[in-house]
Amino acid sequence: MRILVLGGDGYLGWPTAMYLSARGHDVAVLDNAVRRQYDHELGSGSLVPIESLRTRIRVWEETTGRRIESFHGDLTDADFAYETIRRFGPESIVHFAEQRAAPYSMIDRKHAVYTQTNNIVGTLNVMFAMGELDRDIHLVKLGTMGEYGTPNIDIEEGWLEVEHNGRSDRVLYPKRPGSFYHLSKVHDSHNLEFGCRIWGLRVTDLNQGIVYGQQTEETALDARLATRFDYDAVFGTVLNRFAIQAVLGRPLSVYGAGTQTRAVIDIRDTVECIRLACENPAEQGEFRVFNQATESFSLAEMAKIVANSYPGQVDVEYVDNPRVEQENHYYAFTHTALESLGLEPHLLSDTLLTSMFGIIEQHRDRVDLDALRPTVRWREAISSRSS
Amino acid sequence: MRILVLGGDGYLGWPTAMYLSARGHDVAVLDNAVRRQYDHELGSGSLVPIESLRTRIRVWEETTGRRIESFHGDLTDADFAYETIRRFGPESIVHFAEQRAAPYSMIDRKHAVYTQTNNIVGTLNVMFAMGELDRDIHLVKLGTMGEYGTPNIDIEEGWLEVEHNGRSDRVLYPKRPGSFYHLSKVHDSHNLEFGCRIWGLRVTDLNQGIVYGQQTEETALDARLATRFDYDAVFGTVLNRFAIQAVLGRPLSVYGAGTQTRAVIDIRDTVECIRLACENPAEQGEFRVFNQATESFSLAEMAKIVANSYPGQVDVEYVDNPRVEQENHYYAFTHTALESLGLEPHLLSDTLLTSMFGIIEQHRDRVDLDALRPTVRWREAISSRSS
Repeated sequence: MRILVLGGDGYLGWPTAMYLSARGHDVAVLDNAVRRQYDHELGSGSLVPIESLRTRIRVWEETTGRRIESFHGDLTDADFAYETIRRFGPESIVHFAEQRAAPYSMIDRKHAVYTQTNNIVGTLNVMFAMGELDRDIHLVKLGTMGEYGTPNIDIEEGWLEVEHNGRSDRVLYPKRPGSFYHLSKVHDSHNLEFGCRIWGLRVTDLNQGIVYGQQTEETALDARLATRFDYDAVFGTVLNRFAIQAVLGRPLSVYGAGTQTRAVIDIRDTVECIRLACENPAEQGEFRVFNQATESFSLAEMAKIVANSYPGQVDVEYVDNPRVEQENHYYAFTHTALESLGLEPHLLSDTLLTSMFGIIEQHRDRVDLDALRPTVRWREAISSRSS
Repeated sequence: MRILVLGGDGYLGWPTAMYLSARGHDVAVLDNAVRRQYDHELGSGSLVPIESLRTRIRVWEETTGRRIESFHGDLTDADFAYETIRRFGPESIVHFAEQRAAPYSMIDRKHAVYTQTNNIVGTLNVMFAMGELDRDIHLVKLGTMGEYGTPNIDIEEGWLEVEHNGRSDRVLYPKRPGSFYHLSKVHDSHNLEFGCRIWGLRVTDLNQGIVYGQQTEETALDARLATRFDYDAVFGTVLNRFAIQAVLGRPLSVYGAGTQTRAVIDIRDTVECIRLACENPAEQGEFRVFNQATESFSLAEMAKIVANSYPGQVDVEYVDNPRVEQENHYYAFTHTALESLGLEPHLLSDTLLTSMFGIIEQHRDRVDLDALRPTVRWREAISSRSS
């Protein structure tokens, strides 16, 4: 199958591209390298050194004999988006190419506007290109479990059967996201569902949990195939951050009471979920939603798991919550669709954490401790931090 | 009360500004005149001649002795949005300043992207300005009944009590809008609800029905105070279009089977609803939604009402539906909030239509018949019509 991975230079895009390539698919990646640019802007960076996309692709071919084609450019440039799709002719498009950090979108007005316009316009361009060039292409779009917020009812997979005043309907699951970033994904989902209705597009929206881990079978083949490992308070996801704090002998910093519960997924399951979605496409006109997460834990539980599995002393500190979010809430979500397609989840285990501890130990000199401190506060409204 | 009307040069913005001014409020308008620019782009225009904003304001002062302040600029320019709010210091902001035609947003990719970025960024800038400068300002934001689509359950006012698997929650009413324009309003609503949560903003979201009519007490004071009257297939709303077709002796063109039902409201009720919302603000942190519509009719019923009230022969023709929409559907909506604040609805009556017929008769020579024909088709995906 010909699969185009948008954002194929990123934390998950690159491992996904290799995973699909290793399993016999013809893979191309599209990326504008803006994720590397955010590092320059924020003065942060991956804990694990990463190679340029060019080198990654070269090493992948040397190692496996398989080619990955590459298109450098920006999805918000419609001509580029159209031209890439026209030239590569994908059967599936996997769309990771969005600004993906909640705190980044909350830095100030400029970053909120950037996140929403970048994400929405990129996705609109892809939708229109599919609508105009080939309505048979299946779009596998990355969303997030954070779109749902923390409703007091069970979270279903994108749609909800509602009874009201004696009548019933199947409606898009009502969402109440917690950042301008999460909102941008909700906007995308609404736009895409409309595209399925008017143009008969095929779309799978993957509402992904918080990803942890840094290694897949393919990244482990050669150090130059490594994917990024973010630990800073803006781009670092919570479990990765806790693991780094443990190794460095710093207290694990839990926001607020730590009773907030979040859905999570192992990076090795992410790449398998993408494969399953591509190989089992949505129907013509179908807006299909999968909850791409396998377990859920409160932040305090996550801290405890990390502390217990680290072979040394670990403290936990509770810091003022920089976010505005419910701390005591119900949380239950359905995640049967991907499992019914064959996903066999990795569960958050000591084994995995141990491998993470080793990677961190190896690169501990690269850590900038300041970057771990949250500086973006949800309650502040700032037009532009630099002015 | 100091009230800033965003989009105060438009079809409804201008009558609203005068209505509020006449009732003792200190009113300022902000506009970038882009609605007049769309006329140049499309080669269309208001049936009734309209004056420049400068002349309108001058005549208003000559006629009533009341001043309306004016700020020329674009809301997507954050510095301008902030500066206007800082200088005028409004207690309420009424926000009409969005691209508001579904067919315009469906012309091609460029117009879809323009509509969504223009509407979303303008509203984000207003939200941030409120969050940073004065969280006590009450935002009265124009949405549309079209955001809901045509669900098989009763449409409530923005929120829905849901029972699911034995648990319950109050959630944002699930929406399934029918154009990139309608989607932009759904995106705004999600962003604004978040602003209420994180910054304690006060927001009233008015989901307005299709507006008909062209005269209010204030526009009737002087011909130079007239508001625009659109009849073209892009910006003309359905009842106004039918009335014009009747007067011109053209068949009333009903899209599809005409069984699609839509909520409507008289322009004289629109301005009163805005006054009621401003004078009864939402609470700090409250995202309040009113359905600003008073009746609903199928398109075929609307055609019949116009045909019956016109004193001459009127034919009705059924044309291929250029939109993708459900034609046979349930439709029932709640609209008690504004009535409980004191709204006494004008209902679609012969009286009003007769006054519309007179206005049309007076300007019939200005009609461009070609402009009545729908040319934008929902099923087509086009990157750029001009290329």
